[in-house]
Amino acid sequence: MIVDGRTIAAEIYADIAKEIQAASISPRLAVITCAPTPATVQYLALKERKAKEVGITMVTVTLPEDTSTDACVEEIQKAVETADSVIVQLPFPSHIDIDGVLAAVPPSHDADALNPETTAVLSPVVAACKEILKRNEVAIAEKHVTIIGSGRLVGKPAAKWFADMGAAISVVTKDTADLPYYTMHADIIVSGAGVANLITPEMVPEGVIILDAGTSEDGGELRGDASPACSEKASLFTPVPGGIGPVTVALLLRNVVTLALTK
Amino acid sequence: MIVDGRTIAAEIYADIAKEIQAASISPRLAVITCAPTPATVQYLALKERKAKEVGITMVTVTLPEDTSTDACVEEIQKAVETADSVIVQLPFPSHIDIDGVLAAVPPSHDADALNPETTAVLSPVVAACKEILKRNEVAIAEKHVTIIGSGRLVGKPAAKWFADMGAAISVVTKDTADLPYYTMHADIIVSGAGVANLITPEMVPEGVIILDAGTSEDGGELRGDASPACSEKASLFTPVPGGIGPVTVALLLRNVVTLALTK
Repeated sequence: MIVDGRTIAAEIYADIAKEIQAASISPRLAVITCAPTPATVQYLALKERKAKEVGITMVTVTLPEDTSTDACVEEIQKAVETADSVIVQLPFPSHIDIDGVLAAVPPSHDADALNPETTAVLSPVVAACKEILKRNEVAIAEKHVTIIGSGRLVGKPAAKWFADMGAAISVVTKDTADLPYYTMHADIIVSGAGVANLITPEMVPEGVIILDAGTSEDGGELRGDASPACSEKASLFTPVPGGIGPVTVALLLRNVVTLALTK
Repeated sequence: MIVDGRTIAAEIYADIAKEIQAASISPRLAVITCAPTPATVQYLALKERKAKEVGITMVTVTLPEDTSTDACVEEIQKAVETADSVIVQLPFPSHIDIDGVLAAVPPSHDADALNPETTAVLSPVVAACKEILKRNEVAIAEKHVTIIGSGRLVGKPAAKWFADMGAAISVVTKDTADLPYYTMHADIIVSGAGVANLITPEMVPEGVIILDAGTSEDGGELRGDASPACSEKASLFTPVPGGIGPVTVALLLRNVVTLALTK
């Protein structure tokens, strides 16, 4: 089955809008970005539009490329004073100490759950995996989960969460020798490599669940890590675009509401 | 090759003793234990003897079984005032909130590296794996590492460290279906399951490295997770007793010195 992420997202947005009205709150989300690429600008415009639709005010601070780590931290501290949530929109230029910047977002404001100390909300990508699996009544304990990529946004939080849920996990990368050895044995594949067609049908078993959180661009078209033909073997398949992505944005905004309600 | 952990430990102890003399310090290690089993008491006596030999004063606080979480936390706070390092000797009774207790040990005193915020020292078991691999000039990046067990002392810190070092990791448990699928493909197996003979020769490839940090007792004899016959196929094999264990105790004491020197 191909997961319709846009429909799931629409349901989540309807819930969020109701929750905001019922609680009579006006959550505020501050986004810090630094030298954004055109793709980042486009992605932020989408977040802003969705935020507005549900009743969240999003403000974006765009820093120039030569901003120092200290200056980024100061911007975050300023944003914390006025916003309910603060997110750091990656990627940032390589001269910036990302760990230092992310640690400056206090757990009370960390809607992206990128500070290792944050426990009140799940990483939006992980929350999207959880939501999709739950809607399809997939149990996780004792499943074999292969995670491709070990980045901050997908691989690391997914590995932690699936292990905590009692799954047997393998964390591999696009460069791992014998990648098919790990994908062929998986009940669930979570991919965040950002390499189009990294996962092909002959690499996955019949009935596999593919949660594709990888995105890359090919001539202006958004591509996932899994070739679309994988959907024929998968029991559950999230396409790119229209799969994990929209659910992730919706659950980021749900995190903003959750954090606003606990203040 | 069978790793001689006792000889490695002896070398580390000699270094530690020299370092303590050179710096003219008298490090103090406080151990908090609660309703210890006879095995724990024996293990603590070993730690205390080794500590004394190198010039570290170890004091043990033994709490009764009905101690509350809050009372454990208070004991830790008291110990922090007088000791350079404080360790919580697990296991603790099940009614105690272990995460809460471990979080009470500040990173400046956390020689066991069990508080998630501790970065100054490595978990002693992980440090022992690192030491043994380094002495045998084993590179880790891109290796396939299968970790059996996902506990606080072995599985979790090993998974994090090997992933950070660029290995492809699988984290499985003694109950994972098709455990041999993961062990057969491993370059390195790190085991912390505590199940004697869980790993048998037919489950491992020729040339594998086995770092056996699992211990269990069988009629008063200490056993590892790997059957001793695995050593015939392994290029590097740590026996139980006499492998990872002695190196782990030595590196715990090295952590005590490291933390004492940064105060």
